[in-house]
Amino acid sequence: MISNAPYGVEPWCLTESHLDLNLIAQSESVFALSNGHIGLRGNLDEGDPHGLPGTYLNSLFEDRPLPYAEAGYGFPEMGQTVINVTNGKIIRLLVNDEPFDIRYGTVQSHTRTLDLRGGTLTRNVVWTSPAGHTVDIQSVRLVSLTQRAVAAISYRVKPVDETLRLVLMSELVANEEVPRQSADPRAAAILSKPLTGEEHYAVDGDNPRAVLVHGTESSKLRLAAGMSHAIHGPAKMSTSTESFDDMARLLVAAEVAPEEELSLIKYLGYGWSSQRTRPALIDQVVGAIAAAKLTGWDGLLAEQRQFLDEFWEGADVEVDGDVEIQQAVRFGLFHIIQAGARTENRPIPAKGLTGTGYDGHTFWDTETFVLPVLTYTWPEAAADALRWRYAVMDKAKSHAVELGLDGAAFPWRTIRGQECSGYWPAGTAAFHINADIANAVTKYLDATQDEKFEREIGLPLLVETARLWRSLGQHDSHGKFRIEGVTGPDEYSAVKDNNLYTNLMAQHNLAAAAELVEKLDKEARELDVTAEEAASWRDAANDMYIPYDHHLKVHPQHDGFTSYARWDFKATPEDHYPLLLHYPYFQLYRKQVVKQADVVLAMQLRPSSFTDEQKRRNFDYYEAITVRDSSLSPCTQAVIAAEVGHLDLAYDYLAEAALMDLQDREHNTKDGVHIASLAGAWTALVGGFGGMRAPSSGALAFSPKLPPGIICLSFRMRYRGRIVQVKIHDHGVDYLLLAGDPLEITHHGEPLTITGEPQTLEIPPAHPLPPPSQPFGRVPQSRHGRE
Amino acid sequence: MISNAPYGVEPWCLTESHLDLNLIAQSESVFALSNGHIGLRGNLDEGDPHGLPGTYLNSLFEDRPLPYAEAGYGFPEMGQTVINVTNGKIIRLLVNDEPFDIRYGTVQSHTRTLDLRGGTLTRNVVWTSPAGHTVDIQSVRLVSLTQRAVAAISYRVKPVDETLRLVLMSELVANEEVPRQSADPRAAAILSKPLTGEEHYAVDGDNPRAVLVHGTESSKLRLAAGMSHAIHGPAKMSTSTESFDDMARLLVAAEVAPEEELSLIKYLGYGWSSQRTRPALIDQVVGAIAAAKLTGWDGLLAEQRQFLDEFWEGADVEVDGDVEIQQAVRFGLFHIIQAGARTENRPIPAKGLTGTGYDGHTFWDTETFVLPVLTYTWPEAAADALRWRYAVMDKAKSHAVELGLDGAAFPWRTIRGQECSGYWPAGTAAFHINADIANAVTKYLDATQDEKFEREIGLPLLVETARLWRSLGQHDSHGKFRIEGVTGPDEYSAVKDNNLYTNLMAQHNLAAAAELVEKLDKEARELDVTAEEAASWRDAANDMYIPYDHHLKVHPQHDGFTSYARWDFKATPEDHYPLLLHYPYFQLYRKQVVKQADVVLAMQLRPSSFTDEQKRRNFDYYEAITVRDSSLSPCTQAVIAAEVGHLDLAYDYLAEAALMDLQDREHNTKDGVHIASLAGAWTALVGGFGGMRAPSSGALAFSPKLPPGIICLSFRMRYRGRIVQVKIHDHGVDYLLLAGDPLEITHHGEPLTITGEPQTLEIPPAHPLPPPSQPFGRVPQSRHGRE
Repeated sequence: MISNAPYGVEPWCLTESHLDLNLIAQSESVFALSNGHIGLRGNLDEGDPHGLPGTYLNSLFEDRPLPYAEAGYGFPEMGQTVINVTNGKIIRLLVNDEPFDIRYGTVQSHTRTLDLRGGTLTRNVVWTSPAGHTVDIQSVRLVSLTQRAVAAISYRVKPVDETLRLVLMSELVANEEVPRQSADPRAAAILSKPLTGEEHYAVDGDNPRAVLVHGTESSKLRLAAGMSHAIHGPAKMSTSTESFDDMARLLVAAEVAPEEELSLIKYLGYGWSSQRTRPALIDQVVGAIAAAKLTGWDGLLAEQRQFLDEFWEGADVEVDGDVEIQQAVRFGLFHIIQAGARTENRPIPAKGLTGTGYDGHTFWDTETFVLPVLTYTWPEAAADALRWRYAVMDKAKSHAVELGLDGAAFPWRTIRGQECSGYWPAGTAAFHINADIANAVTKYLDATQDEKFEREIGLPLLVETARLWRSLGQHDSHGKFRIEGVTGPDEYSAVKDNNLYTNLMAQHNLAAAAELVEKLDKEARELDVTAEEAASWRDAANDMYIPYDHHLKVHPQHDGFTSYARWDFKATPEDHYPLLLHYPYFQLYRKQVVKQADVVLAMQLRPSSFTDEQKRRNFDYYEAITVRDSSLSPCTQAVIAAEVGHLDLAYDYLAEAALMDLQDREHNTKDGVHIASLAGAWTALVGGFGGMRAPSSGALAFSPKLPPGIICLSFRMRYRGRIVQVKIHDHGVDYLLLAGDPLEITHHGEPLTITGEPQTLEIPPAHPLPPPSQPFGRVPQSRHGRE
Repeated sequence: MISNAPYGVEPWCLTESHLDLNLIAQSESVFALSNGHIGLRGNLDEGDPHGLPGTYLNSLFEDRPLPYAEAGYGFPEMGQTVINVTNGKIIRLLVNDEPFDIRYGTVQSHTRTLDLRGGTLTRNVVWTSPAGHTVDIQSVRLVSLTQRAVAAISYRVKPVDETLRLVLMSELVANEEVPRQSADPRAAAILSKPLTGEEHYAVDGDNPRAVLVHGTESSKLRLAAGMSHAIHGPAKMSTSTESFDDMARLLVAAEVAPEEELSLIKYLGYGWSSQRTRPALIDQVVGAIAAAKLTGWDGLLAEQRQFLDEFWEGADVEVDGDVEIQQAVRFGLFHIIQAGARTENRPIPAKGLTGTGYDGHTFWDTETFVLPVLTYTWPEAAADALRWRYAVMDKAKSHAVELGLDGAAFPWRTIRGQECSGYWPAGTAAFHINADIANAVTKYLDATQDEKFEREIGLPLLVETARLWRSLGQHDSHGKFRIEGVTGPDEYSAVKDNNLYTNLMAQHNLAAAAELVEKLDKEARELDVTAEEAASWRDAANDMYIPYDHHLKVHPQHDGFTSYARWDFKATPEDHYPLLLHYPYFQLYRKQVVKQADVVLAMQLRPSSFTDEQKRRNFDYYEAITVRDSSLSPCTQAVIAAEVGHLDLAYDYLAEAALMDLQDREHNTKDGVHIASLAGAWTALVGGFGGMRAPSSGALAFSPKLPPGIICLSFRMRYRGRIVQVKIHDHGVDYLLLAGDPLEITHHGEPLTITGEPQTLEIPPAHPLPPPSQPFGRVPQSRHGRE
């Protein structure tokens, strides 16, 4: 646990100035680099010590059996788990005859800096060996956002006071020993020795390089990793290269005087395939490295900077008055663009490529929490992630058939598209993921008006998910359309009837599919959609049953929920959270206790389905029973707290979401960062204090307001080819178009056309509300009490 | 599957006159012998061929890990499974140099007869070896109902035409190879080599004998098996005895002339313990054998007969007009008394000791289906089974604590008292087992007025289960007492709110506990029951919420059930039953489809909670959606069908329950007989056509009526020290007291005192009702169409 953030507060970078071995696993996640295809945990160059060595390639997984004490029909028997692939990060150093290892000798100074604009991780360390020899080391690492298969490291070592015999060993290592993880079911299962060597070679000379090729046993995937070097050093220097099944090594030995330095640039190439031959795969990697060398180290740095400049141009958020949040929201956006930049038909996992948490699986988090951010900041990445859903639709259709349903039933958790959930009440039963995908599609279409995507990807995704809902629900004898036995976002309720969130999201899915089919009637006919079928979706949407408790005047989370006994929060010790690790599901499911926003999330995503009064009442009701045992919850609570007028509370929840990883609020950042929660920081700011909503029809809406403590909030977003800037301060709101044609929006419900000329509008006066209460012991940390 | 019963129809025995190797596993279950402590499957004496070799000792189990693809808090990590112990049944024969094996040579004749009055299994076979030598063999086997640790076999072989060299090998064999069972989750997990040899010895001489002692590795139990022999043969005969870790063998070699025979009596003794030392355990077995030898073979036969005569005196059921049912009901009662006779603080498993089905576990079947029969036929056995529940109450209390509840939460499935269910929605969530135990207690107390049991066993069982219910349920804002998130008898619904059966049974449990606490106030105080606590039970019982659908005028099985879509029975192929093996739980739980009687069982066990009209409407409603995928269902449907007036249908269901094993209706008799379904045949006759009910207050009630086809039904039952005989025929009903003082009863609601003088009363005229319909394809086999 990082009790106090060990990272200095700076607006555009994250700096660690002291290496705490107790926090090493967390810092590996926080300092991870990725481009969505390759992921490198922030392990030290020399490999040891580590929390969890980690090098990942998106979707490169191994099967793992899913056992059951009592099996049931259709329980998936095989799961998928991300594996630690060939580690190309390793550069070991010998100082005279002593290995550089920060656990021995003396660290004179240490800094690591993640540069959010440069896209690099820089490490500076001055170390004195046990025998008293001092070296000054700098390494800079990047995973290229422009050259998908490439990572690179610049490594430089200088003797401080004396001539030293230095040996660098730059390596590729497969099948690293991986520590056994905790018994927490949320941590990943570990596979020891997941890779089988297929080929290896090393080439000496001016361009010392090596390639290792490995395969996975059960999933039958093949990967190649290659390295190539440019070395600079003193005259007295020798190099050699060698390779083995699980290791390749470049050795550089040199006698280096104090005024001299020994340095190398290491170019890494990675590739994997389920189909390509070994030679083809090797060529792919060798080619990628050749291209990277042509670009050169400085060229890679420049490309990285250019890519990120373009990203920040339409994505930056400025927070004046809270430097921690300022840093955190940029840190979050950086990890999100890292996770999504180059996925290209592959998923964005819950932890990105920063750790093995949740087995490297992708959940609804992507569509519901991450894609909204990408849609408004880097829409190509959102499109890519949805193209992956389309790419695995055949498996979702087979899954639907297995379940006795029509259309496509997307998996609750997966890497390659197959359902991998081993506990169906909190897995397969969470059908809302299908409507979440549909919602991400409609939001993307609204934000981009991408007609090619609409025809090719959007239409089939909407059609097949609508078919699913039509077969999952049924009309009752009163003509209402009901959906029984499903699990909503709140996993402390499972397999319930008419989950409000699910019904509302399904309603949107059905209606949106019917609408798009009307627009694209030719393409729809190719998907065998008839007018009758589309009408049946429209009918189901119109007839959707929306549970409402007329006595309490709130929406029950599902049928009967408001009659349940409340959880006994007073009797629940603080260390018994998260509850699922300390109480049986049986008790959680039958009580009024909410793990994460459910009705409240419905109010964010389907705002027009609730009156203002209902939003206020529902928020207060669920606030009192929501324990936030999921990192997905606080950002949603922040958005609705802001909407209904609890601005201080919204601020507290914003901080909880934003600082999730920087302060390790859930004690599991070591397994990877919480991509969705990081996205939630943006959502809390833009959707919460910015009040940004993109209604199904009508103009983009803003209802800005600021909590005490934030002096000015300014954010940029991309929308239909424009870049919009909204700047909220205590005198009002400045709207400005940074790029593109004038745009119709609404400001607190009033129409407004924004242009390249700044316009300042007033914020309507707030009506103070009595603050709602949280469960005993679950009051969020106050943002005002932070000094 | 036994498509046509291979057993001849005889009133007092079951005879197999042809050995079909395809049916060998089923016949091993059907011909199993047991006394509730020792169980011997009907394996052939010579061991080969077999379906499943089986020798069991009640509660001798091994642990087995329960794995989970995704673990959850409190999921049991270790289960228990019955193991095949040292096999003492084996007597192999060599005819000249050829082993007697019915798969080779020619079986000239074969019969096996289970004698329901004698308590023996007799086999007669005349076999000609491949080389043409013919022998005539008879074996008679018994498991003593009077000497708990003893089984015995009389084995006799005669050459038919010529002098033959015969060798008998009488053995004890541990760790027999056991065939791998099917993937059906209901079949038992198999453990290979579950026993570790601890000691063995063999003694030659006049009294050749041997003992093997083994232990189990994980459950740390120890067992001893011993054998001793009395041998009769020709002058030229030699014997020897030897023993090894996993085997002991008596060899008898003799030259036998045609007019001579070679015979032996094999006395078997078994004992096991978790505590006793090895010498003590050996002495226990040796002593048991010595006592049995003193009694002698003829003595054991006589004791067996005497025990059963006494049983049948108060238990026999005569069915005139249907010889199959006549045989089946006696066969069922025989297996029930075998399962329950000598359990003595051990449970009665779902399969008795006849196979490894359900891992040898005990469920609610015992209390709900088996104990009612024993209560009215051999009440000591019912008391024993409930004493076992009391004996494991410490584990049930710990389980309640784990679940966050008060009192005792008895396990859904267990051998030794620990919860062993690996899928909690159809395991731990089935809390009704606690009320089922309480109901068995109150029925036993009503039937026996056993005050010692009431004080020592009944009171604590009722108190701790009442405490469970009080903590499991809660008062809602309207003052109703609700029980959420539990699973009722119907396992095609799980984790539902206010299951009608559960609420009604809990109501009875709470009220009965409060009443008994009032009577036994001193003993109750020792259990820390205060007047306030008892009052809170009474309140909860009075306030119990009983769901009712005013629109349909039926009781929903649970909240919301009647709004669910009906299962699409027309689209369900015949070979897709049982549904749980062909459809996901997710679909089963959300549709109106019932695996087994649930509301209908509530109407049987809590008759006064329903009006006659409600019973009729409920029965018809649930009949249309009940698929009878559980062997526990038809007997209950028979009882209520008879009560509401569907006599033909009741007859059909009676037959389905009664012939479950003799006709292998569920294709799994090979794993053991269905003790509860066999009990259901008695219940269908006595509770159905006899209309017998024992109300919570008031006199024992009968409402006899007969279906067309049964000419006369006569049954005997024990009640408060009496033996009552009820004889139903087409002229009326004859009531007669066979033993004890006059008894107040009711006949179709009218009071009557029955005495030693027969009294004949009229059966009120029936009002014909339109027959209800069953799900498509699930109409029961008509009993009228059987010719």
